[in-house]
Amino acid sequence: MGRRFDARLGANESVFGPSPRALEAIAGCGVWMYGDPEAHDLRRALAERHGAGIGNVVVGEGIDGLLGTLVRLTVEPGVSVVTSAGAYPTFSYHVRGFGGVLRTVPYRGDREDPEALLACAGEVGARLIYLANPDNPMGSWHDAAAVEAMIERLPRGCILVLDEAYADTAPPGAVPRVDLAKPVVRMRTFSKAHGLAGIRIGYAIGPETLIGAFDRVRNHFGVSRPAQAAALASLRDGAHLAATVTRIAGARERIATIVERHGLRALPSATNFVAVDCGSDGAFARAVLDGLAARGVFVRMPAVPPLDRCIRVSAGNSQDLDRLDAALGPALVDAGSRRVD
Amino acid sequence: MGRRFDARLGANESVFGPSPRALEAIAGCGVWMYGDPEAHDLRRALAERHGAGIGNVVVGEGIDGLLGTLVRLTVEPGVSVVTSAGAYPTFSYHVRGFGGVLRTVPYRGDREDPEALLACAGEVGARLIYLANPDNPMGSWHDAAAVEAMIERLPRGCILVLDEAYADTAPPGAVPRVDLAKPVVRMRTFSKAHGLAGIRIGYAIGPETLIGAFDRVRNHFGVSRPAQAAALASLRDGAHLAATVTRIAGARERIATIVERHGLRALPSATNFVAVDCGSDGAFARAVLDGLAARGVFVRMPAVPPLDRCIRVSAGNSQDLDRLDAALGPALVDAGSRRVD
Repeated sequence: MGRRFDARLGANESVFGPSPRALEAIAGCGVWMYGDPEAHDLRRALAERHGAGIGNVVVGEGIDGLLGTLVRLTVEPGVSVVTSAGAYPTFSYHVRGFGGVLRTVPYRGDREDPEALLACAGEVGARLIYLANPDNPMGSWHDAAAVEAMIERLPRGCILVLDEAYADTAPPGAVPRVDLAKPVVRMRTFSKAHGLAGIRIGYAIGPETLIGAFDRVRNHFGVSRPAQAAALASLRDGAHLAATVTRIAGARERIATIVERHGLRALPSATNFVAVDCGSDGAFARAVLDGLAARGVFVRMPAVPPLDRCIRVSAGNSQDLDRLDAALGPALVDAGSRRVD
Repeated sequence: MGRRFDARLGANESVFGPSPRALEAIAGCGVWMYGDPEAHDLRRALAERHGAGIGNVVVGEGIDGLLGTLVRLTVEPGVSVVTSAGAYPTFSYHVRGFGGVLRTVPYRGDREDPEALLACAGEVGARLIYLANPDNPMGSWHDAAAVEAMIERLPRGCILVLDEAYADTAPPGAVPRVDLAKPVVRMRTFSKAHGLAGIRIGYAIGPETLIGAFDRVRNHFGVSRPAQAAALASLRDGAHLAATVTRIAGARERIATIVERHGLRALPSATNFVAVDCGSDGAFARAVLDGLAARGVFVRMPAVPPLDRCIRVSAGNSQDLDRLDAALGPALVDAGSRRVD
């Protein structure tokens, strides 16, 4: 965008950084050697963590990469897929890229709507339903029971793509148990609470038949050696993850305090960002976002109404949030005067 | 394979390691942030290096990843593609994965055969021809004039996929000049002479229409932040690259000396490995390979006759090659006695 931002609060990264053990693992991994194309050690550790077998876990180049592979395996021209209008765009991009027919249902009360997703999937005979829990861009969530009930009611032949990128920051009770007998592919990442967005590693858990199919088409050496080493080290550093989650929760509270002082409303969040209701329409929220950007504060916003009345502010450190605090008042004044015009 | 190898001479990595500047760049890249999805700085540097525009360069998750994307963009079920029997298998894997019809022509004199590739492509109306120059697994090469002549004679509508993974170790005169008006996509990697196999980064150069198409389907955040930083630093450390190429040449000579002392023949090589003719058939070469493996020396071999009379030995450091030297005699004795059976 032609300028450097002073506060990087738009990409839902973890400004609190990765585990020092992950950094040591990167430095010591021997980057001249190819990584293990089977990611054996990491998959074994992940399988143990989730009470699954190694054949239930596949590692990929972030959730983006895993979504692309899953769509390639399940979608061909004319196949219907259901998601929510305004949900994670990269999933939709892969569906269109492989010729799928994308059907969307609206959010309901700023949350994705399991009833509407199921109804639409039944109607069009969908191969996939995408649900992010917790959700990006709204930060909202359903409790485990609601997701489990949705899984029970999946139409025959329909797979739930359950994007759990923000599972680490979710409240207790929001993450369903893993049931490998169900047609569900759960996606996790090291980009958020683990603080490793730049290194590109995520994983999927699901039934062995579905997960095993990834091997037929994935880029076998695609997950780098430093990424595998860093993920394994980070997984073993539970203390760092817990400390980060605490800091994220603190940042969410401070964002809420700041925006409420300026008359805006912070939506409840189970993620490492807060959707802030700017109280008007998309044009106004866009003006607020522009006003923040002009003052060196980078945030993003949802793309469709009515979600786009919000801006999305990532958890920052105290300096970042000081900058948000200082920029928000003038940004609102600018946006308000623009609205009057 | 259930054992650790003492000498890792099978994967054509660079045991001589990456530039120290690349390691510094990895350590300092800020891995909590997403990498630049456009890889702007790296692409600009690569474009300058090759006298191309930034729109002529795309960065990907190694040549493997780039081959997959190119095949996805150009091949659909029923489309014909031509390669050589025994050439790089990952290309063929992508072609089959996207439903392409793979046609192969034999090597000629242990080199890929431009005449046969062109003739076959014309016959079947191929969309792609794959040529590795220098070649893996044989280490052989064509000079620039031969490749340029081949490009001039490509059938209408046919794209040459020119895999130049080993360009850095090729003799002067083996790498054709870059002509961006031609339907050629050249692939390069940081996995070989740059010593960064584990970090997964390569690039493709070609006409802007072809290269621009990658943006439609690639995994946009797929190339990690450390990979971009390391590649840029390595590109700027010409001294390290030159020193590595010298060491690789020394290792090739020593491999030749060792195998010739044992009565085998080292094929000329423009790569970071040497194909060693074991003087018999595939079963014998396999037995030699097994004998080396049993003694802790990991090498690989081509998959199809007559190439499979060879084993493929990567450039190693002096300790690795001492181990090869010590293991080869007994391995040959084992293989010979097995042959008598």
